[in-house]
Amino acid sequence: MPENTMMTPACLIDEAKFKRNVERVANHVAAQGCQLRPHVKTLKSVAAARYYAPPGTPITVSTLAEASYFLAAGYRDILYAVVVTPNKLSEVASLVADGAQLTVMVDSVAGASALSEAWQSPHTLQVAIEVDVDGHRAGIQPDAEALPDIATLLCKAEKLQFHGLVAHAGASYGSFTPAARHDMAEQEVARMQHAVRHLTEHGFTCQMVSIGSTPTALEDVDRTGITEIRAGVYATFDCVMAGLDVCKVDDIALSVLTSVIGTQPHKGQVLIDAGWMALSRDTGTATTSFDCGYGLVCDLEGKLLDGWYVAHTNQEHGIICHRDGGKVATDMFRFGQMLRILPVHACATASQFSQYTVVDAHMQTQAVWSRVNGW
Amino acid sequence: MPENTMMTPACLIDEAKFKRNVERVANHVAAQGCQLRPHVKTLKSVAAARYYAPPGTPITVSTLAEASYFLAAGYRDILYAVVVTPNKLSEVASLVADGAQLTVMVDSVAGASALSEAWQSPHTLQVAIEVDVDGHRAGIQPDAEALPDIATLLCKAEKLQFHGLVAHAGASYGSFTPAARHDMAEQEVARMQHAVRHLTEHGFTCQMVSIGSTPTALEDVDRTGITEIRAGVYATFDCVMAGLDVCKVDDIALSVLTSVIGTQPHKGQVLIDAGWMALSRDTGTATTSFDCGYGLVCDLEGKLLDGWYVAHTNQEHGIICHRDGGKVATDMFRFGQMLRILPVHACATASQFSQYTVVDAHMQTQAVWSRVNGW
Repeated sequence: MPENTMMTPACLIDEAKFKRNVERVANHVAAQGCQLRPHVKTLKSVAAARYYAPPGTPITVSTLAEASYFLAAGYRDILYAVVVTPNKLSEVASLVADGAQLTVMVDSVAGASALSEAWQSPHTLQVAIEVDVDGHRAGIQPDAEALPDIATLLCKAEKLQFHGLVAHAGASYGSFTPAARHDMAEQEVARMQHAVRHLTEHGFTCQMVSIGSTPTALEDVDRTGITEIRAGVYATFDCVMAGLDVCKVDDIALSVLTSVIGTQPHKGQVLIDAGWMALSRDTGTATTSFDCGYGLVCDLEGKLLDGWYVAHTNQEHGIICHRDGGKVATDMFRFGQMLRILPVHACATASQFSQYTVVDAHMQTQAVWSRVNGW
Repeated sequence: MPENTMMTPACLIDEAKFKRNVERVANHVAAQGCQLRPHVKTLKSVAAARYYAPPGTPITVSTLAEASYFLAAGYRDILYAVVVTPNKLSEVASLVADGAQLTVMVDSVAGASALSEAWQSPHTLQVAIEVDVDGHRAGIQPDAEALPDIATLLCKAEKLQFHGLVAHAGASYGSFTPAARHDMAEQEVARMQHAVRHLTEHGFTCQMVSIGSTPTALEDVDRTGITEIRAGVYATFDCVMAGLDVCKVDDIALSVLTSVIGTQPHKGQVLIDAGWMALSRDTGTATTSFDCGYGLVCDLEGKLLDGWYVAHTNQEHGIICHRDGGKVATDMFRFGQMLRILPVHACATASQFSQYTVVDAHMQTQAVWSRVNGW
């Protein structure tokens, strides 16, 4: 692509880095003796998923829109990883009627009761219980008295099938040392094993015992009793993951192509046409020692411009500054020059686009991958 | 809509509040003796715009995708309010060839030179110069020597027409008292008048003298020499604007409909199915005395639940907390209950959706308005 014909902002995927990341995680999870159930929520693209989850592979989705889109592309074994509410059951029923082997989640007696009462389909729905392994967000405690009560409710319902347990160690995003990550990975497994034992003592069998997050998935721990690992952002990685040392900055496969639209030399600022609409408002590294603002700045070839980062964003404007402050000359940037911004959080940045341009190391377009948005 | 059939998350617009906001600003700007050129970047919806900018009205856009979409709906007088770069000129040429009376912007000699060299169309393109009135972001200083140089470059180019000046007092978002807002509105006018005088002294005539931001547009100041006012977010307002006291919380016309998917009573947390994918990652009130987190919580009827706000977000999970901390009982929330979240920044929240459901005070759907995304 000649520089002056590419529209900006645009979302690029570096094909070689993407393939390398995908291979790394696939090999690691296989070596851990687990099935990988990729979370497709980062790229939400069938064209991308064929590299890390060919049709037939079990996948995880974050929306029913993803479930529908991937089902149409031949994916049947789908985990919907957000607790399901009654208002979504007509859509869930459509998916199951269309052949999805869909697993939904509950994490409370109230949720299981609501599901039992509201599920009207002639088809059986697989239901997993979400377990809290790290106090991060949702899920029931492994030793909660309500855990077997939920399983009982699910087993009693004629057209529901208790399928197992799901957990997500989201707190691993706050594990900044190798030891902390390893501990979190062990904790994720241990608490899940605890929940399985709790249910086993009450006579329940867990067919699915699903854990995962990109940081813990890449740890090497004993995963006895775990049937599958979920991870999502690993295919592209991002600055958050680089800050955790789960990947290197050079592994980040997603970037936003942008044009320089001006400089304010007296402030040491370079303006670009990628604001929060393109980069997202995510500043997930802001409270860490690896603060990347709204993204790190690379040249058109993808070479990191050391010290430059997107410090501010408005809707369609980004402001690049240097870490050393406003005294660093901006004259290395010229009007109309194209740059690539490495995302702080790839899931958030990718979600601002409807497609990705897949490029090789010479910025030659190899493919255009579309994605699904919405709910 | 019965509660159990609405999909969540969804983006709602309260029709009565929307119409009231639109009327308020239209009346005010008319009383100020200026043409209103609404910025359509908040809702990006032709169906919404017909209430505040019927076809034929001049509009402001933030992307060429908006320009194309609004042109197709009969809008011709369009200001593209981001400095244009050569890579966008083929799209700009298409729009002009299709009948758009498009005005683009430059704010540097480099930008004007690049435009002069790269504009190849047989049609004449209107070009305005962006002026910096508040040190907020982009634009050239009113007294800069380069200002007449840019105008000269534009006038020399055969198929470019120097059209005037544009400024945006974005710093008004940091004006937290009536006096500060009034001062900023006066400053916006005064610096623009200065820029006009500067160019007049060099023999240039400014047909367009365009200023605006929602906070300054709503001030009552002498606007001599100003031909038009731009504003965008006023049609829905948001928590940022309420924090500035530019509107009341009760004026906020946009909300995200969401379902309660669980509670963590020991932490005082309520989980909802609206995460940052629905609400956006914008925390624009975080550093102010009116910190709304990721949004304020209302019941299904739109009544504010005092003290409750979205404190944390993941991709499809939001966590509601009470300002008084984790000791406040969460049992007023029930599984599956629907809530409405008032957005921190309406432009960012609206951009996460492809359509809006327009509802009356009884949550009856009046219309569905689609929007354009992308670039």
